[in-house]
Amino acid sequence: MRYARLSVAGQAVWGRVGEEHVALLSGSPLTAAPDVIGTVPRAGAVWLPPVVPPVFYAVGMNYPRHIAHAGARTPDRPEVGHRANSALTGHGSPIVKPAEVTGRFEAEPELVAVMGRTVRHATHEEARAAVFGWTIGNDVSARTWQHTDRTFWRAKNSDTFKPMGPWIETEVDALAQTTTLRVNGEVRAAFPTGDMVFDPYDHIVEITRHITLHPGDVLWMGAESVCQMEPGDTVDIEISGIGVLSNPVLLEGEPL
Amino acid sequence: MRYARLSVAGQAVWGRVGEEHVALLSGSPLTAAPDVIGTVPRAGAVWLPPVVPPVFYAVGMNYPRHIAHAGARTPDRPEVGHRANSALTGHGSPIVKPAEVTGRFEAEPELVAVMGRTVRHATHEEARAAVFGWTIGNDVSARTWQHTDRTFWRAKNSDTFKPMGPWIETEVDALAQTTTLRVNGEVRAAFPTGDMVFDPYDHIVEITRHITLHPGDVLWMGAESVCQMEPGDTVDIEISGIGVLSNPVLLEGEPL
Repeated sequence: MRYARLSVAGQAVWGRVGEEHVALLSGSPLTAAPDVIGTVPRAGAVWLPPVVPPVFYAVGMNYPRHIAHAGARTPDRPEVGHRANSALTGHGSPIVKPAEVTGRFEAEPELVAVMGRTVRHATHEEARAAVFGWTIGNDVSARTWQHTDRTFWRAKNSDTFKPMGPWIETEVDALAQTTTLRVNGEVRAAFPTGDMVFDPYDHIVEITRHITLHPGDVLWMGAESVCQMEPGDTVDIEISGIGVLSNPVLLEGEPL
Repeated sequence: MRYARLSVAGQAVWGRVGEEHVALLSGSPLTAAPDVIGTVPRAGAVWLPPVVPPVFYAVGMNYPRHIAHAGARTPDRPEVGHRANSALTGHGSPIVKPAEVTGRFEAEPELVAVMGRTVRHATHEEARAAVFGWTIGNDVSARTWQHTDRTFWRAKNSDTFKPMGPWIETEVDALAQTTTLRVNGEVRAAFPTGDMVFDPYDHIVEITRHITLHPGDVLWMGAESVCQMEPGDTVDIEISGIGVLSNPVLLEGEPL
């Protein structure tokens, strides 16, 4: 199944995504089986981030080639950081580059695990059962700020810096897929989605030694490759078996 | 006014806190004027974190004496980090020290600003108007993890590490108060709450240059002094004019 959140008459509504239509749902499918309350055409849908997470986790260095490229040390255990929900935006919505950003302004294509259960002290098997499904994230990063600030508060969390979507796919072997990053249709990177140092289940086991994970929590799994984005570009991140997250890039203060 | 969230028959309910009773409310007072739907005695109330923030911001080094003590550089502009909602717990609930934590396990007494408006590009005056009220936070920190991990993910965000409460006070000159930290009734620290490098409004102005703040977002303002906590202790943080946040400390695996 593919579950999304749409903006319908100004309200956020969950939906089950079909080929031509989206069946609107009475509530979240994360922990219950909601009723179908209507249908809208898929064409023209306004896509919201497919979930607003209680806690938004992001893994940093997690792909061997990214680590080698950055000259970083390969992590010896799973670790996470946090991102801010205020930065989330949906499939099709613009990434707004702040007028004062200079230097590299980059896309990071990431697999996202969406939790469906409350877990603490999870085994590897419990971690697998606790993932509801998978979506796609673009961990947009302003590198100058990333290097000058004490935290990633604006480098990775300014408004619109966290596109996520288009939907949550519940029936895919996410780690057996290919992630492809395109700018204006041109392939800039392609890598095996599952070529990670520590996979999502390793992270869930480690996090839940100390922290309870809840339905809707998301875990962004890091990127192998990144690429520069310019205002006017359209950035697509495809993960085979899941879908395509596509966002135009806009300069702050300029109309779409 | 003092607004809190209580656990009533297993549900989270907003309340307006009086001397003897809490008036239960039909909804959040942050952006509307809810109706009174009932009353419960204040004695025996089960206090929840007074708000579950859309985004949970925390300031690091913000008191001159703390900065000098840490041998850190005085920040030349306001900056923030993030904490995780999963770590929140209410007034009266235990802080659970993980069994594997070694080294310093410390309380950090902090003033917390609670936002009441959606703001972007706020002026100093708009920042003042956007604060709904004030509460108290204990930024519990496991220092060994703080020094060994890439982020503060478990050092400051393990379950129960973020007591907040007891309520939101809307009618106090928060920066003119005194913060007092007590362990088992003994004063361990006392400092002028407003003796900050950058005040909450400075931070709101700086954050909203790039990021939209929303009602319910919280901004923890940093601590001047910290102190060690041991299982069996009760830690009280008082900010005059606001109230007292009190939490017992428990060792993981041991009964309360």
